[in-house]
Amino acid sequence: MSDQKLPSRAEDFSEWYNQLVLRAELADYAPVRGCMIVRPYGWALWENITAALDSRFKATGHVNAAFPLLIPRSFIEKEKSHVAGFSPELAVVTHGGGEELEEPLVIRPTSETIIGHSYAKWIQSYRDLPLLINQWNSVVRWELRTKLFLRTLEFFWQEGHTAHATLPEAEFETRQMLDIYTDFAVKEAAVPVIPGRKSDSERFAGADQTFSIEAMMGDGKALQAGTSHNLGQNFAKAFEIRYLDKGGVLQHCWTTSWGLSTRFVGAIIMVHGDDQGLIFPPRLAPIQLVIVPIFRTDEEKSSVLECAHTLRKELAHAGIRVKLDEREGSSPGFKFNDWEMRGVPLRLELGPKDVAKGSVVLARRDRPGKEGKAFVAQQGIGAAVVQLLEEIQKALFDRALAFRKANTHETADYEEFKTAVEKGFAFSWWCGKAECEAKIKEETKATMRCIPLEQPGGSGKCVHCGDASTEKAIFARAY
Amino acid sequence: MSDQKLPSRAEDFSEWYNQLVLRAELADYAPVRGCMIVRPYGWALWENITAALDSRFKATGHVNAAFPLLIPRSFIEKEKSHVAGFSPELAVVTHGGGEELEEPLVIRPTSETIIGHSYAKWIQSYRDLPLLINQWNSVVRWELRTKLFLRTLEFFWQEGHTAHATLPEAEFETRQMLDIYTDFAVKEAAVPVIPGRKSDSERFAGADQTFSIEAMMGDGKALQAGTSHNLGQNFAKAFEIRYLDKGGVLQHCWTTSWGLSTRFVGAIIMVHGDDQGLIFPPRLAPIQLVIVPIFRTDEEKSSVLECAHTLRKELAHAGIRVKLDEREGSSPGFKFNDWEMRGVPLRLELGPKDVAKGSVVLARRDRPGKEGKAFVAQQGIGAAVVQLLEEIQKALFDRALAFRKANTHETADYEEFKTAVEKGFAFSWWCGKAECEAKIKEETKATMRCIPLEQPGGSGKCVHCGDASTEKAIFARAY
Repeated sequence: MSDQKLPSRAEDFSEWYNQLVLRAELADYAPVRGCMIVRPYGWALWENITAALDSRFKATGHVNAAFPLLIPRSFIEKEKSHVAGFSPELAVVTHGGGEELEEPLVIRPTSETIIGHSYAKWIQSYRDLPLLINQWNSVVRWELRTKLFLRTLEFFWQEGHTAHATLPEAEFETRQMLDIYTDFAVKEAAVPVIPGRKSDSERFAGADQTFSIEAMMGDGKALQAGTSHNLGQNFAKAFEIRYLDKGGVLQHCWTTSWGLSTRFVGAIIMVHGDDQGLIFPPRLAPIQLVIVPIFRTDEEKSSVLECAHTLRKELAHAGIRVKLDEREGSSPGFKFNDWEMRGVPLRLELGPKDVAKGSVVLARRDRPGKEGKAFVAQQGIGAAVVQLLEEIQKALFDRALAFRKANTHETADYEEFKTAVEKGFAFSWWCGKAECEAKIKEETKATMRCIPLEQPGGSGKCVHCGDASTEKAIFARAY
Repeated sequence: MSDQKLPSRAEDFSEWYNQLVLRAELADYAPVRGCMIVRPYGWALWENITAALDSRFKATGHVNAAFPLLIPRSFIEKEKSHVAGFSPELAVVTHGGGEELEEPLVIRPTSETIIGHSYAKWIQSYRDLPLLINQWNSVVRWELRTKLFLRTLEFFWQEGHTAHATLPEAEFETRQMLDIYTDFAVKEAAVPVIPGRKSDSERFAGADQTFSIEAMMGDGKALQAGTSHNLGQNFAKAFEIRYLDKGGVLQHCWTTSWGLSTRFVGAIIMVHGDDQGLIFPPRLAPIQLVIVPIFRTDEEKSSVLECAHTLRKELAHAGIRVKLDEREGSSPGFKFNDWEMRGVPLRLELGPKDVAKGSVVLARRDRPGKEGKAFVAQQGIGAAVVQLLEEIQKALFDRALAFRKANTHETADYEEFKTAVEKGFAFSWWCGKAECEAKIKEETKATMRCIPLEQPGGSGKCVHCGDASTEKAIFARAY
């Protein structure tokens, strides 16, 4: 897979991405248009993402469950804006067991409706609240233009659905989950994100308010990497999710939903990758360290491999996800390139001289050439590697943050704005009017990504119409 | 949920099961006929099953991946017996994105075909073998008669799919995975199972050989709890899965597949449960110990709850899945019954006198009444509970095994056989002919569950036709 050179990112970022996903064996195209096969290396990354999020969900009182993938067509129609948003994207099952169905079923595009139906059944009194359920599953949306991980007909995700007695509790939950996504992105994926509020036009179909985390990719474009919705009482009213309060009065619940998908894999690729290939953040990397043995003679081979196996065991024992590359018929140089392309954060080179000296060479994926190489004693290798992985994790985050800062501009006028969104983010005063948002999109292809929670305060003039504005927003071209 | 008494198992085993699944909040009916919602308590059990199996799969070199749920209709038709087996059960998607599809898609009933298609692409040479992939997902089969966990239109499972260079390697894999299922059932679920070979008529559609593990439920009926298939070269030929061997010759691969599903939850319920409700094996129980605080006055309440919180922390620290039941407005007696019904293996009762004495009462779910109760010192409670949970785990297995032995009969003639399968297993000589198998089914409703791997040796006369037989088989009525 590695015999042809990748296109450089500057040359063709999109093609660099497409080829890299295939060559690194993260994913493959499925026989059905727009569907994706997540291959073992890609799935191992997703499993690590899953584990990091799942423990955060459980620590905040959420539990997992599983709702069916088939939903009666009529369910989607119960919430007015929901049906408008999702109808055009549905996959419809019309036949089952050789017969035409009385009512067509849809494959869930998201599960608010079927979960709303269940919550209405399960929730009776205030004692049943809050109800905090998440599920790990896949959903299907009939997208026209697809790209592996970023937009596929079927994609994998988690969707959390909660019901609360009061609006403030639902608001708290919505923001709490946004914070969890932010924490995950920053600490686990080393991806700096901007948490903020979506505009009305970009809101989830059926939500009162949508929050998102937005990340800058290596080409300066934005990617929405996770969303959290305050659904108000919209679904509670459509599905009659009600509870008896302490005073014996029947009340509608307040609900939320929040999701993060395999899109995030795309974010990791596009934030950290370079012209040599992937760079995985150590905390999520399926393989954190690869051992490449180097030898010429049979005698060298036996002593190097013996030492390599000992090191592998020791590193695994120290909790490091380690792989020993024993492939025959491939040169060390080929292996170096191959694992660089696959984004393994650390490479351990081991030759006869290293064995004799009781040392190894550790090469950092994030720093090419000599600068990233160090001789390290075999004694105590576990602790040394743990520390280096932490340094790499931090370096990746710092680099991504510096890149985002360098490519984010607080624009003084619309001309500056137009230049800013050519290659990065504009952080600009915005009046909040949908017309300005639409015009900006039409004229610059940039969309309002979010109104960051963190605001400078004060006021200014809308970058488009000049009207008085109290909030600044992030605008960018987006995936 | 617990105010009405469950029907006893002797009275109506099927209704006991149905009500228990709903009352214990393991699962619920979905709005679509035959589909199931797995509720948080049921899903927590499934997550523990998942973890126990997944670590066994990974320890034997398997990796996880994710293949799409939509399969072109034509794929199913490529393998002759596969299409015959699965065609009547398909859910068909005819419309996507508002338009009729050119080729209808089916929701996977199992993934041999789409995975075969991918393997043909990914496998080039002997270096790519063996390919050992598993996936955790759900599949859809349009069943007519459904029952929660046991048979639902959509069910959750894992399906392993492997490709090998030679038949012996595929045979080894098929048997290895059967052994893993057996080990899991025995050690984790405390469910004794009989591993064996299926007859031709009960083979998976497209397999050369199917193995299964069979368990006896509390009503004496059999349940197939996991299957492992040697697919020979059937799918390799249908999908052109080929590799260049070391001599440069193009060869077809040998493939296997194996699966275990949420049916297993049904097995756990029906093997261990009693008239009071569920009994979960400690190693898989979502909650291993529940603390029920007992008090009358506010003063008692505060000292009991303080002590309860300390114990909860200590037990959690010792690795025990512990829950403190602080529900207000429910009596301790109500809580005892409720958690008994939900199958929690150990109950810790804590009253003011216990607090004063520095002890607690531990009550075993598997031994009702005084016999199962013990005073235990709070000091060192963690170790005591760990040991008790192990004892319960062993006691559950022993009881289930004794029950199966008591209800399995080595029959001397067909009359004895007919009596045996009324309430248990018959272990009988069988000639191996499909006609005998069919007649037995017609006359007694018992099916050939498996030819156990463990055979007495020697020979005998077929229990039905009297012909010379070299193998004994398990016959039973089955779920």
